[in-house]
Amino acid sequence: MSLVVVGSVAFDAIETPFGKTDKIVGGAASFISLTGSYFTPKTKLVAVVGGDFPRNFIELLHTRGVNTEGLQIKENEKSFFWSGRYHNDMNSRDTLVTELNVLGTFDPLLPETYQDCEYLMLGNLAPSVQLTVIERLRKRPKLIVMDTMNFWMEVALDDLKAVMKKVDVISVNDSEARQLTGEYALKTAAKKILDMGPKFVIIKKGEHGALLFSKTQIFFAPALPLEIVFDPTGAGDTFAGGFIGHLAKTGDISFTNMKRAIVYGSAMASFCVEKFGTEALENLTQEKIQTRITEFAELVNAEM
Amino acid sequence: MSLVVVGSVAFDAIETPFGKTDKIVGGAASFISLTGSYFTPKTKLVAVVGGDFPRNFIELLHTRGVNTEGLQIKENEKSFFWSGRYHNDMNSRDTLVTELNVLGTFDPLLPETYQDCEYLMLGNLAPSVQLTVIERLRKRPKLIVMDTMNFWMEVALDDLKAVMKKVDVISVNDSEARQLTGEYALKTAAKKILDMGPKFVIIKKGEHGALLFSKTQIFFAPALPLEIVFDPTGAGDTFAGGFIGHLAKTGDISFTNMKRAIVYGSAMASFCVEKFGTEALENLTQEKIQTRITEFAELVNAEM
Repeated sequence: MSLVVVGSVAFDAIETPFGKTDKIVGGAASFISLTGSYFTPKTKLVAVVGGDFPRNFIELLHTRGVNTEGLQIKENEKSFFWSGRYHNDMNSRDTLVTELNVLGTFDPLLPETYQDCEYLMLGNLAPSVQLTVIERLRKRPKLIVMDTMNFWMEVALDDLKAVMKKVDVISVNDSEARQLTGEYALKTAAKKILDMGPKFVIIKKGEHGALLFSKTQIFFAPALPLEIVFDPTGAGDTFAGGFIGHLAKTGDISFTNMKRAIVYGSAMASFCVEKFGTEALENLTQEKIQTRITEFAELVNAEM
Repeated sequence: MSLVVVGSVAFDAIETPFGKTDKIVGGAASFISLTGSYFTPKTKLVAVVGGDFPRNFIELLHTRGVNTEGLQIKENEKSFFWSGRYHNDMNSRDTLVTELNVLGTFDPLLPETYQDCEYLMLGNLAPSVQLTVIERLRKRPKLIVMDTMNFWMEVALDDLKAVMKKVDVISVNDSEARQLTGEYALKTAAKKILDMGPKFVIIKKGEHGALLFSKTQIFFAPALPLEIVFDPTGAGDTFAGGFIGHLAKTGDISFTNMKRAIVYGSAMASFCVEKFGTEALENLTQEKIQTRITEFAELVNAEM
């Protein structure tokens, strides 16, 4: 089934306790579309970059079968740039630099070939841009998943609430769920978020796993305990890519299948953090993915 | 099978964002022995209290079938007292008061009827006291589980290492595992702890669940997402009580059964945090426990 991915394609510069990068390719939609490509051959990207963006990354997306007709290249402008430094615990980070550049005026144009979109993944972006994408699709997709972050809760809460009313699934991290609802207990926070529109909410807890809530059901998947967590950047996006990728591949949006999708998302994220940037996602195999899925199943199998 | 529990029986005064207690009954062995009593009728307590300790709690233990022959009452002294205040996130706390009192000179005397001990739970105490208990048992128990804390890593590391060489299972929390090994990744930290003696290590992550490691296997159980986390005091002890309680009840110390024991421990801890002190553990039923076990099984069942 066709999967349309909207989000940033950008440069990151990252410092972790294990090392430091110059500008490397990052951005939510880079991670999501690469990840999605392991699930469906019909992954379509909507994004904007500047003339400074490396053509070889776009070629990599083509090699992976990603349709980039919706990727605008503004030759005389610069790509979005983010720089951050992770703390020793790797769960928190400081933003050092944010240069919006082309993202400041991003008008998400949808090629006609994208109008068959059945699965729409709105990566973290200004809620107004996310809303524009929904409005520009003539037929409502079978499933709309949105990701967002604390920044938009602070500067564009009304817009964010408007998007939330139009999506099926929202993904936030634990501190964002608490910020959005004022509730400490995640179960209570999830209920309040569900009252704001989405039918499902995913609460990501980084190295502590992820929770999926519907009004009546809860599912939890841990993160795989890894010996090396090299760079958490993009892990949440990769998780989202695996989640919606599995749903788009199978065409089944039942809660039962969403639970499996959470496990696929967790497995893909576990690869992501083992290397800097998108590197770990560039050369995966179905066999490697399945091996990790098996590890996940064994990790929580209590054989009760 | 007989379960001997060693640890503090004491007073706590607790402040949480939800309320505040005067002196109430706490202490590792209070939580562990109460919890153990739901699994085996042969739970035996080794501890010391002062003349100020309420007789009705001791009667409660008798009602639950706990043998208190090994509970010394020093009429002219005062019981151990700890007071702490939880931060808003309920995962961290400040110690306000620690009065060792009778615990400062605790000599763990074992009644002759305790010599049949098959399962030994060494709750958090000075490692030298834990070691004395092991040495005073003429026949080595089938399984020895120890809990400890960061304090002993700072003031009695050599003693702690000596006990670790003599136990089968050690339980620590995530920050303690990191402190003990200097490793951030819990998988790596667990390996180093296993090299120090124990055959199994449990790493508790509070609201984020618990991991069980052997040299070759890993198992993870989440904490149940609760709407109310009222008071986390004793949750780790209650977890330990459920863990060793299930093993003592079934008499099976395979890794497979330890996984189930982790789930029982998590279920018991999920009751503990819903009320102040030991209150939630005083009137459970097997039916309530089984219902919660079912919730745990459903929570992580990905139906892959």
